Amino acid sequence: MRRRNVKNADQRIKDASLNVITEGKEHKGSWSKLFGNDNPIHLEIGMGKGDFIIEHAKTNPNINYIGLEKFPSVLIQAADKLNDTHLDNLYLLLVDAATLDEIFDNHEIDKIYLNFSDPWPKARHAKRRLTSSSFLKHYEKILKKDGLVEFKTDNRPLFEYSIISMNNYGMEFLDLSFDLHNRNIDEYIIKTEYEKKFIAKGNPIYFIQTKFKK
Amino acid sequence: MRRRNVKNADQRIKDASLNVITEGKEHKGSWSKLFGNDNPIHLEIGMGKGDFIIEHAKTNPNINYIGLEKFPSVLIQAADKLNDTHLDNLYLLLVDAATLDEIFDNHEIDKIYLNFSDPWPKARHAKRRLTSSSFLKHYEKILKKDGLVEFKTDNRPLFEYSIISMNNYGMEFLDLSFDLHNRNIDEYIIKTEYEKKFIAKGNPIYFIQTKFKK
Repeated sequence: MRRRNVKNADQRIKDASLNVITEGKEHKGSWSKLFGNDNPIHLEIGMGKGDFIIEHAKTNPNINYIGLEKFPSVLIQAADKLNDTHLDNLYLLLVDAATLDEIFDNHEIDKIYLNFSDPWPKARHAKRRLTSSSFLKHYEKILKKDGLVEFKTDNRPLFEYSIISMNNYGMEFLDLSFDLHNRNIDEYIIKTEYEKKFIAKGNPIYFIQTKFKK
Repeated sequence: MRRRNVKNADQRIKDASLNVITEGKEHKGSWSKLFGNDNPIHLEIGMGKGDFIIEHAKTNPNINYIGLEKFPSVLIQAADKLNDTHLDNLYLLLVDAATLDEIFDNHEIDKIYLNFSDPWPKARHAKRRLTSSSFLKHYEKILKKDGLVEFKTDNRPLFEYSIISMNNYGMEFLDLSFDLHNRNIDEYIIKTEYEKKFIAKGNPIYFIQTKFKK
């Protein structure tokens, strides 16, 4: 996700009369209460400008969505898209994924999406990748039993790294594609803004659907 | 591997004064004795026309090689390439990989190579793929502790299938590439005849190095 400077992002986020949460800790264990129902909760980590999660929230009113993003200047762009539309089933959350277990209780989340995460190409930054074992540990904790992790990227080295990381962590692989949009399955049709650009260029999108073993 | 009809392949294999073995069972547990030394034994399953394993055998005289191929018409082409050269450290073996455990004792093999295996594209033939769990079970049995399996292919769907199959079998992934010859590592330089063609066309070669967990 390329970040551009957005003026007064922090102040604007504070002022927004939107479903933006800047501190998640007070909702730990009570996200369902916040949503006002017991529908499944799907979490996108690093939602970027929000196209993917906003589209999902509109399409699936019976699923609750939380879009997590650590950069105010990025989150505000997702918030701007929501300006006209209030969605009861969507919260945008301005926090760092490294603090996931302070924000969600064990097994509070039904599904995690990782879309076009920062590749952190340097080996010494590998631990910052959202598919490194330290993050997988968080996901395992907050996910329900049989809860899915779905990961999409156009970045080949990141995907290679992620396959090894998820495998050696002991995850189960349910589905896998090295060219998601060139197979004849209609399932994963909601695309991120990034994805649309890459598809237009003819670049393949890598995809894995996985879960933690019992 | 495209198979062409080779006249009298069976008879020619019988007549060949080469290191060709048409029945492997009699050597079960005593392959080292046959080679006359205790060097590690590397096995290529589905060696095709033999370029890969012949080149390896020439390059590494201190490793013993066995090239397994089930089709006489294919094996004879590898045998023909050996006509001029006798290599003490190479046997060609005309057997079906489904009978591996009748031919090799537990932990008799140090490393297994799978190169450009038949993709068996139809879902109902998935069990015939050399990376299906029924074959992995054989490999686990005949491989030494920490023995490696290295798999290369240009076939994307076969590689996708294999990653899932090997992961869900519980193997450990040591190295992985979706474009083997476009990374700056010189390790895997001996190429099969197939591979050379595909590289020339600009097609990526998929690669995984893996082993069984203890």
